[in-house]
Amino acid sequence: MPLSEQQRDEIEHQRSDPRTTLRATCEALEEILYQPLPVLDHGFVRVVDYMGDDAAVVQAARVSYGKGTKRISEDRGLIRYLMRHRHTTPFEMCEIKYHVKLPVFVARQWIRHRMANVNEYSARYSILDREFYLPEPDQLAAQSASNRQGRGDLLQGREAARVLDILREDAARSYADYQEMLNEDDEGNVIDPDRQGLARELARMNLTLNVYTQWYWKIDLHNLMHFLSLRADPHAQYEIRVYAEVMLESMRRWVPLTAEAFEEYRLGGAHLSRTGLHVVRRMLAGETVTQENSGLAPREWRELMAVLDPQD
Amino acid sequence: MPLSEQQRDEIEHQRSDPRTTLRATCEALEEILYQPLPVLDHGFVRVVDYMGDDAAVVQAARVSYGKGTKRISEDRGLIRYLMRHRHTTPFEMCEIKYHVKLPVFVARQWIRHRMANVNEYSARYSILDREFYLPEPDQLAAQSASNRQGRGDLLQGREAARVLDILREDAARSYADYQEMLNEDDEGNVIDPDRQGLARELARMNLTLNVYTQWYWKIDLHNLMHFLSLRADPHAQYEIRVYAEVMLESMRRWVPLTAEAFEEYRLGGAHLSRTGLHVVRRMLAGETVTQENSGLAPREWRELMAVLDPQD
Amino acid sequence: MPLSEQQRDEIEHQRSDPRTTLRATCEALEEILYQPLPVLDHGFVRVVDYMGDDAAVVQAARVSYGKGTKRISEDRGLIRYLMRHRHTTPFEMCEIKYHVKLPVFVARQWIRHRMANVNEYSARYSILDREFYLPEPDQLAAQSASNRQGRGDLLQGREAARVLDILREDAARSYADYQEMLNEDDEGNVIDPDRQGLARELARMNLTLNVYTQWYWKIDLHNLMHFLSLRADPHAQYEIRVYAEVMLESMRRWVPLTAEAFEEYRLGGAHLSRTGLHVVRRMLAGETVTQENSGLAPREWRELMAVLDPQD
Amino acid sequence: MPLSEQQRDEIEHQRSDPRTTLRATCEALEEILYQPLPVLDHGFVRVVDYMGDDAAVVQAARVSYGKGTKRISEDRGLIRYLMRHRHTTPFEMCEIKYHVKLPVFVARQWIRHRMANVNEYSARYSILDREFYLPEPDQLAAQSASNRQGRGDLLQGREAARVLDILREDAARSYADYQEMLNEDDEGNVIDPDRQGLARELARMNLTLNVYTQWYWKIDLHNLMHFLSLRADPHAQYEIRVYAEVMLESMRRWVPLTAEAFEEYRLGGAHLSRTGLHVVRRMLAGETVTQENSGLAPREWRELMAVLDPQD
Repeated sequence: MPLSEQQRDEIEHQRSDPRTTLRATCEALEEILYQPLPVLDHGFVRVVDYMGDDAAVVQAARVSYGKGTKRISEDRGLIRYLMRHRHTTPFEMCEIKYHVKLPVFVARQWIRHRMANVNEYSARYSILDREFYLPEPDQLAAQSASNRQGRGDLLQGREAARVLDILREDAARSYADYQEMLNEDDEGNVIDPDRQGLARELARMNLTLNVYTQWYWKIDLHNLMHFLSLRADPHAQYEIRVYAEVMLESMRRWVPLTAEAFEEYRLGGAHLSRTGLHVVRRMLAGETVTQENSGLAPREWRELMAVLDPQD
Repeated sequence: MPLSEQQRDEIEHQRSDPRTTLRATCEALEEILYQPLPVLDHGFVRVVDYMGDDAAVVQAARVSYGKGTKRISEDRGLIRYLMRHRHTTPFEMCEIKYHVKLPVFVARQWIRHRMANVNEYSARYSILDREFYLPEPDQLAAQSASNRQGRGDLLQGREAARVLDILREDAARSYADYQEMLNEDDEGNVIDPDRQGLARELARMNLTLNVYTQWYWKIDLHNLMHFLSLRADPHAQYEIRVYAEVMLESMRRWVPLTAEAFEEYRLGGAHLSRTGLHVVRRMLAGETVTQENSGLAPREWRELMAVLDPQD
Repeated sequence: MPLSEQQRDEIEHQRSDPRTTLRATCEALEEILYQPLPVLDHGFVRVVDYMGDDAAVVQAARVSYGKGTKRISEDRGLIRYLMRHRHTTPFEMCEIKYHVKLPVFVARQWIRHRMANVNEYSARYSILDREFYLPEPDQLAAQSASNRQGRGDLLQGREAARVLDILREDAARSYADYQEMLNEDDEGNVIDPDRQGLARELARMNLTLNVYTQWYWKIDLHNLMHFLSLRADPHAQYEIRVYAEVMLESMRRWVPLTAEAFEEYRLGGAHLSRTGLHVVRRMLAGETVTQENSGLAPREWRELMAVLDPQD
Repeated sequence: MPLSEQQRDEIEHQRSDPRTTLRATCEALEEILYQPLPVLDHGFVRVVDYMGDDAAVVQAARVSYGKGTKRISEDRGLIRYLMRHRHTTPFEMCEIKYHVKLPVFVARQWIRHRMANVNEYSARYSILDREFYLPEPDQLAAQSASNRQGRGDLLQGREAARVLDILREDAARSYADYQEMLNEDDEGNVIDPDRQGLARELARMNLTLNVYTQWYWKIDLHNLMHFLSLRADPHAQYEIRVYAEVMLESMRRWVPLTAEAFEEYRLGGAHLSRTGLHVVRRMLAGETVTQENSGLAPREWRELMAVLDPQD
């Protein structure tokens, strides 16, 4: 279900009303401000506000009176230093606010990040739209045999088709019954004047977990990076990872120097354990190290070998 | 679905193994430790651990070397003083941990209290039980006409029966289809050896929001009181309020002096606005105050009159 | 010590560089953006950035696609409703960032508000300026006889003069010895080339608690109101209250509807205990209530009578 | 200044009063419960309460009904898995409470860890003791030439002696003048009946930053590990590091499996950047990598070489 005409008008209205400010601004982010960036089949991420930029990180780190920026190269160096040495508080001085539309089961993972502000659309107060997430065929994966919280091969043929039918039909039936219990149709008209309609706060319990909800979500840059480091990670469930990837893109527009440092020192690096580090030192000293003499359990050994693999 | 025999054995095992400690202990709470206190049709609250007691509040407020308690009456006075004057940090020095079983739509309200620690049963990793919340007839309320997020009259007769049928059948069908997609029956056996079974992290999206989940939830006493002041309040949705009421009972066992002060100064009192306070002063001075000359909007006037009603 | 010429230039530079943005802006706050608002003898508060306005509160409460504002009167009504009913999350959607210069003993109270972001000037890394707080004569108060954490009468004559001499001389001597240990004078020149100079992270311990420090401090509107409700309160220590009052002024410029509701429902009101409320009901019913028959302890009775005093 | 006889009596009293509990207990931690572990010249750390043990981590991760422990080896494996994969929430289910005595300048660093509960001795309300931190000669270091927030060589001979004299004399004079302004001597007697005495909340500003304060400080195990990873690190200032080291010792008594995993995966390991990891892969493939062809800046290159140094 695309945005309604009225919603698109409201967004255009906001985009057509430039103001003057003395605050730090970020042109590349203004370009996409308010615009829905599509995610999954009916979801989106919209940047609706932001505070600060790369220079604001520098400014806070220096507790300065002025803009903080001396030369771009100096700012870049300081930002990389802060990232490398886990001086996290200057990154808390930037803030971003998103409007997100997402399935409820994704919202349930997302909300566990507590260091953020959230206002969710209230299904006690209002009626949810008839929109459910249905996976694309290339995401319809079997349970992984090796990883209890992961996906294995894609389902094929009749099994895949059957799953999609079930998901579609159960969501549709639950939604139709939700309206039936509310005694209210798509246009908000009463279905049967002789019935009262169940309270919204009760009727919602009949919906399936792939129904879409939406919220305003606001977070500082430090905590955003923490969120992204967990949710843009290959181990994250696909359905939340695609949101994280779109948000990482918006971060690159917003604070390019911080994003570069984040990808160099956090996303792209690797953490070695004490024993893993010892293994690397032994290897570099020319020793032949095997799992057996490494001091690592088989699973950790495989993880270390994957990290050190030149093809990766 | 009651606890399984194994679960009851595990609880009994823990209750039959007293230890010695030098820490503060609380007999009245130990009496119910680990035991499930039933809530709703399949839910429960279990106290699984606690730290501190009323004396620990006093001890922290005094930053003392010893137990903090001099005389009970002094402790009581200090606790009431702290509560009255919003000195909240000493109450943060006590901590309690619950194991809670609750419907997902209740969990979604609950989790918005961020100042707590939570470990939820993972439906990415494990399979949820076949248990759904179905309201009792005396909770099957119509949408309130006056309060968009409230309940009105009870549904009657055929409408009530129809709603219960829908809730029961949709939950059951969604769950049966969940198992079908997982390709796994109640005993964990494969249903059809020619199918792979959908990944758990995907299949769960077919469940309805009244399915039960469970979590470990840990919170300090200050934040517990904040939770209870919002969720044991008559404006809270019934399905979360019944949990809050059971937790308030456990709090009375745990820290009776704090609970008494909490009910006197927080739960049982009322907050007057600047204008509302002015109205009370005028009334006490003998003036006849009406909504029209009160400076209050009609709704606020009604709220104030309800607060001042001697019958309340 | 006023701002240096360079600091004033940096501020002017920022104020002379207007940009274009599509974000919500707030003219009354832009007027004072970056400008130091003086507090105490050497301190200041500077608003250095902000996110959102009154409309952003409404927008978040409605999880809306557009600006949120329909009519000012509707926004005002909703904001008052949210404030009255403790719906706090929409207020978390606005954020403000201050640069504050303040004595260390004030900073130590202030930092206990944890729900904020802070970057403090580092005395491990840099050298603090020669600036100390000395109270004005009208703040030089004796210990209160009745309130162990309050002030009584003003000190007079020789005692007052003696106190000011002590504070001035001890601060000056400690600072001079700080420089002596650092082996560095006001211009950053080495005092004695034959000495190494003590590490900054150690030398700072010789400074007195009235030395000024500074920090960037960022907070959301909900938590700002919590801070102000505690620190703009008459029970707060004067030296932090004057900061809170200046910040309350900046809040009135920033979000006037929220500020109005905050003063009506939070700052200007009063909380009655369960028994206190009962007393008011009895009085309104015409009963003569005295402390003895009120059920209130003498101190609580006096507090209640003060709240109900028509002269207040 | 050692503990007073009364303080020692209070501690002994608590240690001599064993109770019975059904909660998890930890013998090795009970052994030192309440006892002051000395740090610096007048400071200490006392464990005054705790909740949970290694098994509680497992129990929470499994959201189990029983004790969580099956076999120690299984628990150990799960705890190591959780630590390695940053599943942090189960560690939040354990809590520990300390009573700490520490210099104010250390308290100012410490308090920046916001995810903890704290009750500090109030110098608005009470009078601080005459106790200051004076560094041992082997900690009297010069400013580092290479690291602006670090220490260099030890001060020697006359310079060292002069520094100690300054620190001792300025602290003593500031304290004597504090008493003079309070008009109160060591025994709490009025010095001059013709003076009123300055309010405590003002007089305290004359004290130097090495004066000792004390607080109750409570934190969950996850956040404790975060604190220790930053403050038990060689880059932390010595005066806070010694506290962290004592707390790490108490953690080893409390949750030995978690402590072992923490030292293996967090404290003892190393984080490689994207480019640093690439350098290691190239080296392992037999390539000769130098700073010039590494893609790393000289400083990062030195840091990487230190990490890979087999002698380390």
